[in-house]
Amino acid sequence: MNAQNIVVQKFGGSSVANLDCMKQVLRNVQKPLADGKKVIVVLSAMSGETNRLLGLVKQWSSTPDLAEVDSLVSTGEQVSIALFTMLLKDAGVKARSFLGFQIPIITDDFFSSARILRIDNKKIFKALETYDVLVVAGFQGCTEDGRITTLGRGGSDTSAVAIAAAINAEVCDIFTDVSGVYTTDPNITRKARKLDTVSYDEMLEMASMGAKVLQIRSVEFAKKYNVIIHVRSTFSDEQGTIVSQEDSQMESILVSGIAYDKDQARITLSHVPDKPGISAAIFTPIAEQGLLVDMIVQNLTETEFTDVTFTVPRSDVEKTLEILTSLKSTLEYQDLRSDANVCKVSIIGVGMRNHSGVAAKAFLALSDENINILMISTSEIKITCLIEDKYGELAVRTLHDTFKLDEMSYSNK
Amino acid sequence: MNAQNIVVQKFGGSSVANLDCMKQVLRNVQKPLADGKKVIVVLSAMSGETNRLLGLVKQWSSTPDLAEVDSLVSTGEQVSIALFTMLLKDAGVKARSFLGFQIPIITDDFFSSARILRIDNKKIFKALETYDVLVVAGFQGCTEDGRITTLGRGGSDTSAVAIAAAINAEVCDIFTDVSGVYTTDPNITRKARKLDTVSYDEMLEMASMGAKVLQIRSVEFAKKYNVIIHVRSTFSDEQGTIVSQEDSQMESILVSGIAYDKDQARITLSHVPDKPGISAAIFTPIAEQGLLVDMIVQNLTETEFTDVTFTVPRSDVEKTLEILTSLKSTLEYQDLRSDANVCKVSIIGVGMRNHSGVAAKAFLALSDENINILMISTSEIKITCLIEDKYGELAVRTLHDTFKLDEMSYSNK
Repeated sequence: MNAQNIVVQKFGGSSVANLDCMKQVLRNVQKPLADGKKVIVVLSAMSGETNRLLGLVKQWSSTPDLAEVDSLVSTGEQVSIALFTMLLKDAGVKARSFLGFQIPIITDDFFSSARILRIDNKKIFKALETYDVLVVAGFQGCTEDGRITTLGRGGSDTSAVAIAAAINAEVCDIFTDVSGVYTTDPNITRKARKLDTVSYDEMLEMASMGAKVLQIRSVEFAKKYNVIIHVRSTFSDEQGTIVSQEDSQMESILVSGIAYDKDQARITLSHVPDKPGISAAIFTPIAEQGLLVDMIVQNLTETEFTDVTFTVPRSDVEKTLEILTSLKSTLEYQDLRSDANVCKVSIIGVGMRNHSGVAAKAFLALSDENINILMISTSEIKITCLIEDKYGELAVRTLHDTFKLDEMSYSNK
Repeated sequence: MNAQNIVVQKFGGSSVANLDCMKQVLRNVQKPLADGKKVIVVLSAMSGETNRLLGLVKQWSSTPDLAEVDSLVSTGEQVSIALFTMLLKDAGVKARSFLGFQIPIITDDFFSSARILRIDNKKIFKALETYDVLVVAGFQGCTEDGRITTLGRGGSDTSAVAIAAAINAEVCDIFTDVSGVYTTDPNITRKARKLDTVSYDEMLEMASMGAKVLQIRSVEFAKKYNVIIHVRSTFSDEQGTIVSQEDSQMESILVSGIAYDKDQARITLSHVPDKPGISAAIFTPIAEQGLLVDMIVQNLTETEFTDVTFTVPRSDVEKTLEILTSLKSTLEYQDLRSDANVCKVSIIGVGMRNHSGVAAKAFLALSDENINILMISTSEIKITCLIEDKYGELAVRTLHDTFKLDEMSYSNK
């Protein structure tokens, strides 16, 4: 079987929400079939189903066994692949469904956030001799000894990319309810423009910043195995966005997009004695509780004291404050404060690593709108500003305009 | 692991219908645990769930692929075992769930009505070294190459008995929403009495006659492997009914119970030429469509012609009539009639094989109530009468009284 003749297509929960949606998916699958290709279809659970199942878990246990949770929630995909395969067979297509353990997609045993270790492509190639379409359950795998695991929220994207990598497919089509990756959230500015191409690195920064088109791990996977992702709409034939290695053309684009994340809260420890190891003493206990700290800024206030400010997701504020309160005598800080009325706005672009001036231009633009910047952090391809919540949308629109992202140009300097 | 220290308990859909029911199941599981035993719990899907899933199938396809149906409906048990295992773990019990493929329970590939070929007890014994309770999905198994199968309606009983047989357990507890097997349906006569014991053969006749306490195949399985079944209530501690080989004590009981089946219709082909092979010509095409013919009576009306009467489940009447209409020119019958206003009443007892007079006594009792018998069929341990529907309950009460089934006696002659 030549991998060039196999197409991998992934459809999310909203694309398989009901019979009518699945019929649209069927039409998308039939296109490559008509061209004589074989298709591997990776499906999510019908939208709402995973939440319904997690709701049951919540009723039954406050500290559920994660292996049991995985076995339970994996039924969502089990239902959608069976139903879709029925549709295919009714349409006269030779097809069968595959659960994670049937391929198998072997993962580690970190239940509920398992990582794929390997995928056996032998059974896939063998099945493609008999069937024209394989319908594979996304989001799930199994451990070496056959216990069901799940890959974490949005894990179906990773399933699809991993299968594309395993069979050496050139492209993995990710069908979704939007038509591609945009320069920013179209709900914030109508000037948002669909990108034709975006690099893995830019996509990683965008995904982690709340542009929720692709699961971040799927992009890491694609980058590692050099799988080209085509993000496109289930409900139109329009060309979407190609996510791939950056090329020289991309390099000349300074800024590709503006990301926006409202789910942020700021925590400040003031007047902390500036001893060696103080940062470790603060952040190790927080990390041990599985809390994700994002931006960290440390200011020296006096010679012997420092202020430490960082951000966490809003849902983790209480837990973080609890931990830090219990450490007051060890850390010897004077004051502990939190503020949930903040948001993050980021400017992303592989081009900025070779150009100066992007940051200055951004800060000036925000200042012209009287938007005060609370924290700044930068990476090679990203500049992030923490600002007051209420200015979030204005900041996105301002930066989108400043870097002329609505214009299709190869240099928006 | 000594099999005498392992208890097998099966709980049906109404016993796991919701959190409160499952807590009652938990209490039942904790009793043998407190005695230092290990427990294998076999669960059905939460009541209503299998029908909900089959409803989805119906929406999606009129001729669904049965392998896909099985993968889909097996999720019902997958959900209930995960939820119940969470309860066990919250109660501090070392427990894990097992799906059919994880044991594995190997079946043939007759999807939706698969038969168990073998169960590997090695993994069960090994798991019992680590866990005190294994929670096993009923109703499901897998083929040699790992496709999910289901065992047909009520298949969880068969799962439980098969596991008890595989580990050589002495007793398989089948917990249900009634407290045991009764001499007849307590909804028809309040004189119905719970039986302390009943033989496999009697239970088989009762089950097939609509006393729906146990799936008939589970009783066949239990008989074949000599597994004693204890049918009892989830919601009380009362001793239930033991289903086992008949013993000499049982032999002396003439009649054990009266079964009743309303789901019957009678079909008559009149004035059929009485040629060799005519019965085969009638019943082969019906059997080929998967229709279950039960009672068959053939009367010679004239020298060269015969009337053939038989019964089918009411839901199969239309299909049966269609088949026979299409065969009119081959069969050369004069008339085709059907009557759905009939029901079957049966007298069951292993004792009657050594006694005459049971049939005569039954016919006399019915005649005293002016109940006309439309058809009769007999086996070694059963006498079945087809009567008019409206007399069904009266016939059951009459026969129950005639054979004094409300009295606890060893000879009800």
